[in-house]
Amino acid sequence: MGEFIIQGTVLTPVSATRVDMGRAVVHVAADGRIAARHAHDTPAAADLLAHAARSGIPVRTLGLEQLLMPGFADLHVHAPQWPQMGRALDLPLRDWLEQRTFPLEARFADPDFAGPVYEEMVTTLLANGTTTAVFFATIHEESSLLLARICLHHGLRAHVGLVAMDDPELCPEGYRNTSVEQALAATRRFIHAVRALPGNESGLVRPMVTPRFIPACTDGLLHGLGVMAAEEDCLIQTHCSESDWEHDYVRQRTGVNDTVALDRFGLLRRGTVLAHSCFMTEDDMALVQARGAAIAHCPLSNAYFAGGVLPLRTAWQAGVHVGLGTDISGGYSPSVAVNAAMAVTAARMLDTGNDPARPQAQRGRPGSRISFAEGLWLATRGGAQALGIDAGQLEVGMAFDAIEIDRTAPGSNILPPIHGEDGAAEDVAQQILCNMGRPNIRTVWVAGRQVHGTDAAPD
Amino acid sequence: MGEFIIQGTVLTPVSATRVDMGRAVVHVAADGRIAARHAHDTPAAADLLAHAARSGIPVRTLGLEQLLMPGFADLHVHAPQWPQMGRALDLPLRDWLEQRTFPLEARFADPDFAGPVYEEMVTTLLANGTTTAVFFATIHEESSLLLARICLHHGLRAHVGLVAMDDPELCPEGYRNTSVEQALAATRRFIHAVRALPGNESGLVRPMVTPRFIPACTDGLLHGLGVMAAEEDCLIQTHCSESDWEHDYVRQRTGVNDTVALDRFGLLRRGTVLAHSCFMTEDDMALVQARGAAIAHCPLSNAYFAGGVLPLRTAWQAGVHVGLGTDISGGYSPSVAVNAAMAVTAARMLDTGNDPARPQAQRGRPGSRISFAEGLWLATRGGAQALGIDAGQLEVGMAFDAIEIDRTAPGSNILPPIHGEDGAAEDVAQQILCNMGRPNIRTVWVAGRQVHGTDAAPD
Repeated sequence: MGEFIIQGTVLTPVSATRVDMGRAVVHVAADGRIAARHAHDTPAAADLLAHAARSGIPVRTLGLEQLLMPGFADLHVHAPQWPQMGRALDLPLRDWLEQRTFPLEARFADPDFAGPVYEEMVTTLLANGTTTAVFFATIHEESSLLLARICLHHGLRAHVGLVAMDDPELCPEGYRNTSVEQALAATRRFIHAVRALPGNESGLVRPMVTPRFIPACTDGLLHGLGVMAAEEDCLIQTHCSESDWEHDYVRQRTGVNDTVALDRFGLLRRGTVLAHSCFMTEDDMALVQARGAAIAHCPLSNAYFAGGVLPLRTAWQAGVHVGLGTDISGGYSPSVAVNAAMAVTAARMLDTGNDPARPQAQRGRPGSRISFAEGLWLATRGGAQALGIDAGQLEVGMAFDAIEIDRTAPGSNILPPIHGEDGAAEDVAQQILCNMGRPNIRTVWVAGRQVHGTDAAPD
Repeated sequence: MGEFIIQGTVLTPVSATRVDMGRAVVHVAADGRIAARHAHDTPAAADLLAHAARSGIPVRTLGLEQLLMPGFADLHVHAPQWPQMGRALDLPLRDWLEQRTFPLEARFADPDFAGPVYEEMVTTLLANGTTTAVFFATIHEESSLLLARICLHHGLRAHVGLVAMDDPELCPEGYRNTSVEQALAATRRFIHAVRALPGNESGLVRPMVTPRFIPACTDGLLHGLGVMAAEEDCLIQTHCSESDWEHDYVRQRTGVNDTVALDRFGLLRRGTVLAHSCFMTEDDMALVQARGAAIAHCPLSNAYFAGGVLPLRTAWQAGVHVGLGTDISGGYSPSVAVNAAMAVTAARMLDTGNDPARPQAQRGRPGSRISFAEGLWLATRGGAQALGIDAGQLEVGMAFDAIEIDRTAPGSNILPPIHGEDGAAEDVAQQILCNMGRPNIRTVWVAGRQVHGTDAAPD
């Protein structure tokens, strides 16, 4: 992969609340990082272009209707639930799990079943602009390793977790680890195998320690996984304080909230990704902040399975890292943009409340709303930061994980500016989150490598 | 426009709660209505195909991955707000109106400004599968009539309202009717002009009496419009009980809720479309039902500007007609499918409540949830029924307002069934509402005329 230069309109979050947009010349180095970014029509930009011309570095120039923006981070995807995305959400949670989800996940014992599903999932996520993904796989080592290989092959920056779940009380007979020892040995082998994958020297694909959630795991397994995460210096993912049912179950079993229980098991560390977390208290959030762990906010899924909206503003005020998760298939959309728009919408609904039968003063939680600029941050830098990855902003030093948006593509629902008035950066960011569809996504890069699109080779 | 036969998988709501899917042969008569629909592999289907062969009636055959379904009805679109779709939703309502919306609408005084905007809007709505739309235009007769002409030209089944707004208290100086008499005369001329448009003999495009909402209109104007609607036997649209602010304003000015006030002005009739209606009481709903009026439910917009979720289940239990509205640009998506999915999501959030800080028992309004089958009904037959139109189901006697969905189109986020197992009709309906994008919409027909797509001429 060689260095290249790309010039065009760059849209990037500069902080959680501020979006920047302007014509720029960007130098992507051979290591896939942004070596330089200069505003168009500056001497530095001219120098860079002159240097490129002298050195034969390819230059790609985008039109006025194209935009370069950071790729999306999806912090919570159940890879084996891909075939039921957009299905079965009318079912109650128990039926959803027992009738649909567990039997589907169990089929991934067969790598021949898993392969085509994971192949289609990875390419579809890339086509939707996801450049970083965090996957729950299944308990099956071979299929889960296949997922890691497929991510690596297609160039998706990915985190893959072999799921651990051993409690016979809550896990089905045919789909659970047979013992604590079996689960721990499998996880250890999996961590080593992912790290040793040929072509993975840069760590594009990383393993994750993945207890499904406290209710599915025995204390012995949770403790063992905490020890292993420290020994292996491995990221962790699990579900946390998702719903009343789950929250109450954990309190009943452990006497404390999920965060405290996870911390006691050694599972709350920098790089731990806690899916959902709707029912976290301020004390929980302070603990999560102290440990450097992060929340994967899944606003669409939460409407169906959590029964509450994460008080995101409160989490931010506590200094907690937050990114977005599609939670496929508890959430129905593979698009992080759709989920970012839903995060803004859900925060509005938490802010104002939603039941008109209550008086206004007793309805909402004022101060909860977030802006679309904040939605963009969540979808990009927020997620990358949660994972400790230098990506999510098109800034010098960051990996070039980027999307080329074509606002005038056939089939676009992003309206081009009327009479050429381009509007504020915030408006454009909002249009992208609200109205972007697959036709708008022309090219996607991860670490400087083109991973989606056919016409974007530097010219 | 000649008759034709189309055979393929048909997905259609049969009631508010039931979806049907199966291979069928459909006969579309020259008047644009469905003359026959027979299940595939029945003698009646074979007879129909033999008749077509003998008579030279064109037959189009869809593949197994295509689906024929009814087109969508969008009951609430602010046509002049099209250029700011997906923009400015972070602004408070007052700033949104004063800084953005009213100045934008005022520009439609110029038909040269309006023409390209309306042209793009109508073709984009058709491309998103909308076959029936209800538009608020502006107070400008020439531009609003141009909108009606553009709808007619492109074959969109449309309802166009010349907006009436005359109260200097709440309407801006440069954008309001100058007197009750001026507003009434303009509305009367507009009704006649739309009905007299060449090519509109079948009434594909209908005028609507359109008081913006009670706060923008004087009593004299509201009364005059009520009288005119009866004299002209014209449909009516307005906003109703949208937000705390609007609801309280009307109560303060009139002493009653919007519905009662509208009824007193003669504005609550069969075919009246009441946008939003979040704050309707059960008494309001009983009155709306008694008058045969309908609600345009705009779940996405309501999250931003209403501060409450319409208790849709309660409205249905009262026997009120309900359809969906995108409420562009209060809502950000031109897709009725997106809004249908949001209706299901919002109903879940009303059902469970959304603030985790409240105890579960005090959080939600249990019983409020709706299914995706009901979401499909809302998006199709519910909306058509509200307007008294025979469309929205692919049944004999209905207009052939239909969409051809290609589940395997390049750029599709609808997952094809794994191993050819197609799943229940409800699952497929849900996938379409949740995951459909423009790439999936191959062809759109209104009243038997192809209005979108290039490759679907009967072969």
